[in-house]
Amino acid sequence: MSFKAPLKDMLFALEHVADLQSVAKLPGFEDAGLDTAQAVLEECAKFNEGVVAPLNWTGDTQPSTLSNGVVKTTPGFREAFKQFAEGGWQGVQHPVEFGGQGLPKAIATPCIEILNAANLSFALCPLLTDGAIEALLTAGSGEQKKRYVPNLISGRWTGTMNLTEPQAGSDLSLVRAKAVPQADGSYRVFGQKIFITFGEHDMADNIVHLVLARTPDAPEGVKGISLFIVPKFLVDEAGEPLERNDVWCSSIEHKLGIKASPTSVLIYGDGKGEVGEGAVGYLVGEENRGLEYMFIMMNSARFAVGMQGVAIAERAYQKAAAYAKERLQSRDVVGSSGPVAIVEHPDVRRMLMTMRAHTEAARALAYLAAALSDAGHHSGDATERKRSMAAYEYLVPIVKGWSTEMSLEVTSLGVQVHGGMGFIEETGAAQYYRDARILTIYEGTTAIQANDLVGRKTARDGGAVAKGLLEQARESAASLSASANADLQAIGRRLSAGCDALASVIEFVVANSKSDVRAVFAGSVPYLKLAGIVLSGWQMGRAAQAAASRLESGDDAGFMAAKIATARFHADHILSQAPGLASSVVDGATGVLALESERF
Amino acid sequence: MSFKAPLKDMLFALEHVADLQSVAKLPGFEDAGLDTAQAVLEECAKFNEGVVAPLNWTGDTQPSTLSNGVVKTTPGFREAFKQFAEGGWQGVQHPVEFGGQGLPKAIATPCIEILNAANLSFALCPLLTDGAIEALLTAGSGEQKKRYVPNLISGRWTGTMNLTEPQAGSDLSLVRAKAVPQADGSYRVFGQKIFITFGEHDMADNIVHLVLARTPDAPEGVKGISLFIVPKFLVDEAGEPLERNDVWCSSIEHKLGIKASPTSVLIYGDGKGEVGEGAVGYLVGEENRGLEYMFIMMNSARFAVGMQGVAIAERAYQKAAAYAKERLQSRDVVGSSGPVAIVEHPDVRRMLMTMRAHTEAARALAYLAAALSDAGHHSGDATERKRSMAAYEYLVPIVKGWSTEMSLEVTSLGVQVHGGMGFIEETGAAQYYRDARILTIYEGTTAIQANDLVGRKTARDGGAVAKGLLEQARESAASLSASANADLQAIGRRLSAGCDALASVIEFVVANSKSDVRAVFAGSVPYLKLAGIVLSGWQMGRAAQAAASRLESGDDAGFMAAKIATARFHADHILSQAPGLASSVVDGATGVLALESERF
Repeated sequence: MSFKAPLKDMLFALEHVADLQSVAKLPGFEDAGLDTAQAVLEECAKFNEGVVAPLNWTGDTQPSTLSNGVVKTTPGFREAFKQFAEGGWQGVQHPVEFGGQGLPKAIATPCIEILNAANLSFALCPLLTDGAIEALLTAGSGEQKKRYVPNLISGRWTGTMNLTEPQAGSDLSLVRAKAVPQADGSYRVFGQKIFITFGEHDMADNIVHLVLARTPDAPEGVKGISLFIVPKFLVDEAGEPLERNDVWCSSIEHKLGIKASPTSVLIYGDGKGEVGEGAVGYLVGEENRGLEYMFIMMNSARFAVGMQGVAIAERAYQKAAAYAKERLQSRDVVGSSGPVAIVEHPDVRRMLMTMRAHTEAARALAYLAAALSDAGHHSGDATERKRSMAAYEYLVPIVKGWSTEMSLEVTSLGVQVHGGMGFIEETGAAQYYRDARILTIYEGTTAIQANDLVGRKTARDGGAVAKGLLEQARESAASLSASANADLQAIGRRLSAGCDALASVIEFVVANSKSDVRAVFAGSVPYLKLAGIVLSGWQMGRAAQAAASRLESGDDAGFMAAKIATARFHADHILSQAPGLASSVVDGATGVLALESERF
Repeated sequence: MSFKAPLKDMLFALEHVADLQSVAKLPGFEDAGLDTAQAVLEECAKFNEGVVAPLNWTGDTQPSTLSNGVVKTTPGFREAFKQFAEGGWQGVQHPVEFGGQGLPKAIATPCIEILNAANLSFALCPLLTDGAIEALLTAGSGEQKKRYVPNLISGRWTGTMNLTEPQAGSDLSLVRAKAVPQADGSYRVFGQKIFITFGEHDMADNIVHLVLARTPDAPEGVKGISLFIVPKFLVDEAGEPLERNDVWCSSIEHKLGIKASPTSVLIYGDGKGEVGEGAVGYLVGEENRGLEYMFIMMNSARFAVGMQGVAIAERAYQKAAAYAKERLQSRDVVGSSGPVAIVEHPDVRRMLMTMRAHTEAARALAYLAAALSDAGHHSGDATERKRSMAAYEYLVPIVKGWSTEMSLEVTSLGVQVHGGMGFIEETGAAQYYRDARILTIYEGTTAIQANDLVGRKTARDGGAVAKGLLEQARESAASLSASANADLQAIGRRLSAGCDALASVIEFVVANSKSDVRAVFAGSVPYLKLAGIVLSGWQMGRAAQAAASRLESGDDAGFMAAKIATARFHADHILSQAPGLASSVVDGATGVLALESERF
């Protein structure tokens, strides 16, 4: 089955949830209204459906390979990336002055979703490059921006993030890679980095590695880490390649999924290059502030990984729905003359609705977050910028954590809908199940997202931002409950109960974050899931209200009715889990913490 | 990491949950008390830990292969199966008169769990053979029993179940395979069967296929299906092989997991054998009653697949716990001088406790069910037999459905605990995640189990059996709540709320199963999950009470405290989901059924 980008749902969410019309009133985004969004997304869909999506299965069966330090990517990837670059797709959200299209994140986000739904492995290369671009734009010198950013935006080169070392995964304070200053102001970098996505490949002329390392006199811990540019090939001012730098791919991993994406071990300073011993690196920004800069990339990448969750969920849903409409098996539960398509069986329907509701809800929340990011960066009003930015930053760990957690359930249901055929690799449903499994791990596990949510995003401001969002959700709940429409009323009731649950958890986190830190962190992931469910359920409620009013005006009745039905399902099957999750946070620490470690 | 059978927890569950002492009072089981159980399980553990478990990873990397119609199993399987057979492990629960050990199901069940935890793929061959033995013992003629059963029990031969055809998966009414009667009373079987586990292999001298097929004048649908014995080699009365029968393996599947288990396409009647055209088959029991007999195998196999869920969950838990105690990363959340083992981090602990609580709870419920089966078959009192059998049959779809559903979550958490390493195949955690994924599908999907639970097991008797179990659970809840121990009180409160939730759902199912069948089936899987959570949570409560009283007598304090802690966790993190699930059943049908089919 071929992938079709869900343009109608995307545009609906942009219009009625993300309020793109308001984004288009921000300075610099005057042309970025719904018409532009539609035109861009249609082009994006056309390219990805036609060129990138067909390579998804190819990538699973013919992964990238390593031979003599050189990675050969899946057949077709190189040519597809060329077309991706020529189409300007790397530059959608980047500044016009460096060759980008300067569109808002609210429009770039569905583009990223489409690319990832087409091919998660392929999309990782642009995803990391986006992060590198953002880090350089924020922390790089004028000369560095000029030298590297246009070539990254054009797709001539790609970028990577080099954080992890064998002993330093979630805990970057343990980074050991070294950077030794040279007389000319450059550095020589030594060390080993692991899990480097597209750390070596054959799709572009050069790879710009952004690398965390310590200078000789740096303090220990996270305050002694600096960020360096280490290009695979040194380049002159015009970007023409010079010597091969001393950074080498020693192996690529044999993984459960995203097999086409080469996950590299990179050795810096092996002495085999054309530059002598040590990889030539250039300090980004100031020494010892590397982690801070890396977090710029990380936040961008975390949001994008959240979109990967939405994307793989959409892809899995489409495949399962197509199968369920085609596969005949068993009579209808109320009787039929022969076997019916399995989509008619109540439990298949329940599974498909679960997949659909999770996907639409997470999409809507992410698009809202993207629009908040746009306002946070571009609003003419400083208060509005601050308020929007804070809301966006609160939502980033939720978009990352929740969209990816739900994608595990959705891709698993995708296998289940296929029955025995789902377990056969050739069917393809299993690939989504395998591919999705990395999403709750990389760019910070769900627990790391939840720590961020609890610590920096909730406890630090006494829950102010969280309560602000909750207040808006309560207004929606009240308005839904006051509706004459039975579905909207039901959604309003569930949303209201969900808000109560989330409020109790926010209170708990704020009240105990100093006095009983262990108990608070014992509930961090349930808090994240609860916030994901309630805040995305809130968007489903808003979407249902908009659909109801468009339905009244006779607008696209089938689509609008489906919107309401999906929101209703979300309320009774997903939002309904909120009180239970709140119990796990508020009462759950005893059970989490009671066991002695050696008893495990 | 090597696998260690959790003997202590198994024996605790046998003693305090399954009440093995009472099983040992049943006629014929006088020697099958706790001492026997301990001796058998220790031997079982020794064999499986030493011989079978080390082949698990081998099987994933060197799956069974097919060449010229012959399947070569994973290196080491053949020799291990020989030892399995020689140890008498195929016969644990089968009658002494056919060479078995005649032990109760309550003791055979932990043996099956250990074998499956050691190696899910390997264990499938004995699992299917058990089903074939039970079907022959129940429906076979005296001569058939004599000819086939001893050789199956001794492990000289193995058995298979041949149900599925490309158009007939969950819906067996669509079976098309044909059986043509011959003058000598035998039949010739023609057709294609798919998804046949160990349908062809090199581990035994012969394979006894039990095959569903239609005789020429059979009525359409499920009432026209008969059951046939089709041995790979015809045998004489002494069991010595004669001609090669006309049944052939044409391919084996390329699967997501359990790769060592050859999942075969079998062609009957290709004319290539030594018997002329058509596979020689022998009718089992009466014509057109095949489905009924097959359900004997199915019920045995369904329960066993439930144990596979418990087993893979245990294996995944052990691996994750070992990694968490060994891997150092990040400082303690309340501060430490350096990185600590990740088991100290609250969310890692939460994940491990989730894995542990699910596994122990599902194990306890399954052992209880096994003991009910023993009483159901062997009690001297007819009323007691009937009561026990009905309770067992109510629990079979729950043991199958819930133990396997929870195993998906547990094996997924097993990957998550390992972080990035979990996604690397060599780590091994991903294998459990892949292997487990079939368990909610084969031997009847979770939806099929849930249909059985709703229809045959709840609606048919007006919920009588369900309510009987619920009444016992309520007594436990009351007794827990009345305890002076704060943990037991907390468990009692959650269990009581869980019972309310389950009661409301049983009422809903009984009240609407005729008037609104679609709505009832829309909630069937949430009902199954709810029943799984509440009834296994009830066993956790009973176990905690027993542990508390043994703790008071100073008995093995660390183990007993851990039992209580795990039950407490189960209450606040898993039982707490019960009310939400009940809402999905009672209020959820609208959302499930609203969407028009073509809108998916």
